[in-house]
Amino acid sequence: MKKKTKTAITPTRSEDYPEWYQQVIKASDVAEKSPVRGCMVIKPWGYAIWENIRNILDDMFKEAGIKNAYFPLFIPLSFLEKEAEHVEGFAKECAVVTHHRLEKGPDNRLVPAGRLSEPLVVRPTSETIIGDSFSRWISSYRDLPILINQWANVVRWEMRTRIFLRTSEFLWQEGHTAHASKEEAVERTHLMLDIYAKLVEEYLAMPVIRGKKTPLERFPGAVDTFCIEAMMQDRKALQSGTSHFLGQNFARASEIKFQSAEEKEEYAWTTSWGVSTRLIGGLIMTHSDDDGLVLPPKIASSHVVLMPIIKKTDDRSKVMEFTESLAKELREIFYGRRKLEVEIDQRDIGGARGWDWIKKGIPLRVEIGIRDIADNSVYVGRRDKGHKDKISFKRDCFVREVTNILDEIQDTLFENALLFRKEHTFAIDDNKEFYEFFTPENQKKPEIHGGFASACWCGSGECELKIKEELSVTIRCVSLITGTEKGKCIYCGRPGCGRVIFAKAY
Amino acid sequence: MKKKTKTAITPTRSEDYPEWYQQVIKASDVAEKSPVRGCMVIKPWGYAIWENIRNILDDMFKEAGIKNAYFPLFIPLSFLEKEAEHVEGFAKECAVVTHHRLEKGPDNRLVPAGRLSEPLVVRPTSETIIGDSFSRWISSYRDLPILINQWANVVRWEMRTRIFLRTSEFLWQEGHTAHASKEEAVERTHLMLDIYAKLVEEYLAMPVIRGKKTPLERFPGAVDTFCIEAMMQDRKALQSGTSHFLGQNFARASEIKFQSAEEKEEYAWTTSWGVSTRLIGGLIMTHSDDDGLVLPPKIASSHVVLMPIIKKTDDRSKVMEFTESLAKELREIFYGRRKLEVEIDQRDIGGARGWDWIKKGIPLRVEIGIRDIADNSVYVGRRDKGHKDKISFKRDCFVREVTNILDEIQDTLFENALLFRKEHTFAIDDNKEFYEFFTPENQKKPEIHGGFASACWCGSGECELKIKEELSVTIRCVSLITGTEKGKCIYCGRPGCGRVIFAKAY
Repeated sequence: MKKKTKTAITPTRSEDYPEWYQQVIKASDVAEKSPVRGCMVIKPWGYAIWENIRNILDDMFKEAGIKNAYFPLFIPLSFLEKEAEHVEGFAKECAVVTHHRLEKGPDNRLVPAGRLSEPLVVRPTSETIIGDSFSRWISSYRDLPILINQWANVVRWEMRTRIFLRTSEFLWQEGHTAHASKEEAVERTHLMLDIYAKLVEEYLAMPVIRGKKTPLERFPGAVDTFCIEAMMQDRKALQSGTSHFLGQNFARASEIKFQSAEEKEEYAWTTSWGVSTRLIGGLIMTHSDDDGLVLPPKIASSHVVLMPIIKKTDDRSKVMEFTESLAKELREIFYGRRKLEVEIDQRDIGGARGWDWIKKGIPLRVEIGIRDIADNSVYVGRRDKGHKDKISFKRDCFVREVTNILDEIQDTLFENALLFRKEHTFAIDDNKEFYEFFTPENQKKPEIHGGFASACWCGSGECELKIKEELSVTIRCVSLITGTEKGKCIYCGRPGCGRVIFAKAY
Repeated sequence: MKKKTKTAITPTRSEDYPEWYQQVIKASDVAEKSPVRGCMVIKPWGYAIWENIRNILDDMFKEAGIKNAYFPLFIPLSFLEKEAEHVEGFAKECAVVTHHRLEKGPDNRLVPAGRLSEPLVVRPTSETIIGDSFSRWISSYRDLPILINQWANVVRWEMRTRIFLRTSEFLWQEGHTAHASKEEAVERTHLMLDIYAKLVEEYLAMPVIRGKKTPLERFPGAVDTFCIEAMMQDRKALQSGTSHFLGQNFARASEIKFQSAEEKEEYAWTTSWGVSTRLIGGLIMTHSDDDGLVLPPKIASSHVVLMPIIKKTDDRSKVMEFTESLAKELREIFYGRRKLEVEIDQRDIGGARGWDWIKKGIPLRVEIGIRDIADNSVYVGRRDKGHKDKISFKRDCFVREVTNILDEIQDTLFENALLFRKEHTFAIDDNKEFYEFFTPENQKKPEIHGGFASACWCGSGECELKIKEELSVTIRCVSLITGTEKGKCIYCGRPGCGRVIFAKAY
């Protein structure tokens, strides 16, 4: 029997993927569960990832003419009711504020008091409250387009929660635009999807499939929902961003009207689009390994940790001087929009120190001992390589090459994820094969199944629902690039159907 | 009778200050009331100010070793109850979530359903929920200090709201730190007050008085509250930031304990501190005039607007080419941490265009006509000068000098505000004089009274309350710099009392 290699995370991905995910989060110190049901605490190491996502996206939004604003947290119930499908979609998961103060009850404990005349819903999304503003802001075609984004928290009362992936409260951005023509609104819907794909692929190093949702999976109230879907290491899909073409549905609900150039009163065409802290969950599940978190450099909380190695007989000040001057030099180097973030870890805790940083997923670990200094060199470990796989660099050479090394790590992570997805994506045209593909080899580990199946679908909600019921598999999207190839519906066998992506999903 | 000069804002400050404030907000397009009671919509021109505040503060926080994180929006009622004074202070203004879904009621309208076993309070502040995390994060003195900040929305259900100054929901940052010693915690409390004073004075151009709150005005649960207080143009005070030394009160409530270097178990010493979107209200009320908003350049949503003037007979493309190349050149210039923000306004609406930008408070308006171009010059108006007071600059000279001009505007605004405060601050030692000082000359305009009174106070809550009841005047703070001069209590006449700042306040 092969001796099992010791890993920093127990269990490993293959032993118990869901538990591995929780343990990576714990070991990397990115977040923790809170005592409030389904809510999380995002710790500094995790929040820094979100800040990087925010800064990158915000630049791209600005480039695309979008301006930030802020709208109320609370939505009057009557607003939510304006769009029938919309309220139907969110009614089951709304946190409802019913009182506006606390007072001493009979047993001297505090109880809610001051009942509100109309209950307020904590926003699950803001189409209706922003639509109300738009209805006031827009009167002529000259006021259009309006391109607005807000960075905010939203609440969807989920019954089964999982940190980052599905939490009752999460952070996100939600963009809302209004246009004078359908064409322009549709174009904006696609533009935003492209921006999300760029963020996720180029910065988070997660390859995505762009596609359109089926009516069953659409955002409540939308005409069309477009999405980017990524494959996690358990071969499940994660919806990583959505962009909705809302037609005139919300404009009708909120009375967003304008005088056209031809002096006719028309309803505006609106869109909405968002990504959330869920992306951090996707990032973890795409790149991390059995030793912990692996952070793509372009989005990493920090890039480099310097670890001075000081033995009792060593000249401490000499080692620290070298370390600090190196940190200073590195911190002046631009990597993308920001300068390199450099940590110095002086803790004298032996090998645990290096492992701590491996578990936290920092791209580069640099060891600096008295002998390295004598040689004017540093000893560098990359997170995308084995933990023993370290190499010595001349100091100058490391400083000169550091951004190239980071780029190389970034590319490697993307390539690995792309390869993984390719290895687990199959075109399947036979119903039996399809069912086998999604049946786990090991019933105890339901997450390990085939992966993504590109199969044909007749377009009926019935076939879609049957597959969902029988296999817990959903149509992730009608891929925007599979082309016009036609085949038989994988469920009912009807011919002439287009290909879609089927998968189990988070 | 002197002919009244026409102003862009009606009423003027002297006619009706509170209404002038609302009209400036409307005319400058920074924010609007929302249909949700007491909540506001922060529009792009206003939100940009908040983003600038956030970016500047965030840099200062980082410099001071503070890390950002994020904690749940909801606080279990039982958490809030842990600190008696704290819950007492906030019970009357809590939004309470009692249900987690909506369902169809008897009349087919949606009603709250799924009652929570324990009500959740929408955070009015996060000492208790963050304290809970701290109790888990801290076990040894080696874990200290912990220096955390979060950018978040909070809700305090206010009965009388005023946009930016007092809203049910507002945006803020709240910092929370834990320390091993009292001295270190007190030091941090002061350091954060210094950072706030720097932000408000150097960037928002608002002179502030630093001081300590009386027990009556203290944050609920704090040992000491320190504050910065600014004078508005109606001579009222605006508390613009607070920093609290919490002693071991919240550590006891949340069981934040640590093993000391001497291996004893001790409670940590904690602090908290915050500034909010209220600062934008203060900014408006400090600098704006009867023509609208006036933005200090360092915090302005945008710095320069270019207004091409194109007559029918002019060569449009020539004017636009000049305008766009100037914009491009200006946008490459760093002003502080960011590059110059430049607007181009091509609207053909005559004089209304220039007035729009005056009302919006942009620091520099640049007119570009065909004759200016022939002369290679531009025609520049400064917001801190009269609207007709414009001068011609050679283009190169303007580009070279633009940041100096902006600095000059910044300094002028601060100097003006400082002068205004000095003119309306008096040392008063006579009770009758004190009462006259705070009695409005005109009962219809209760906001126009004397200003700040530096007077002596015996330290009794009784005298303080009497003055509050009789004059609606409060002790803004025990100034940290008035020194040791002693006098008679302005209310009871007891001798040997120290000076404090009295004022009406928002």
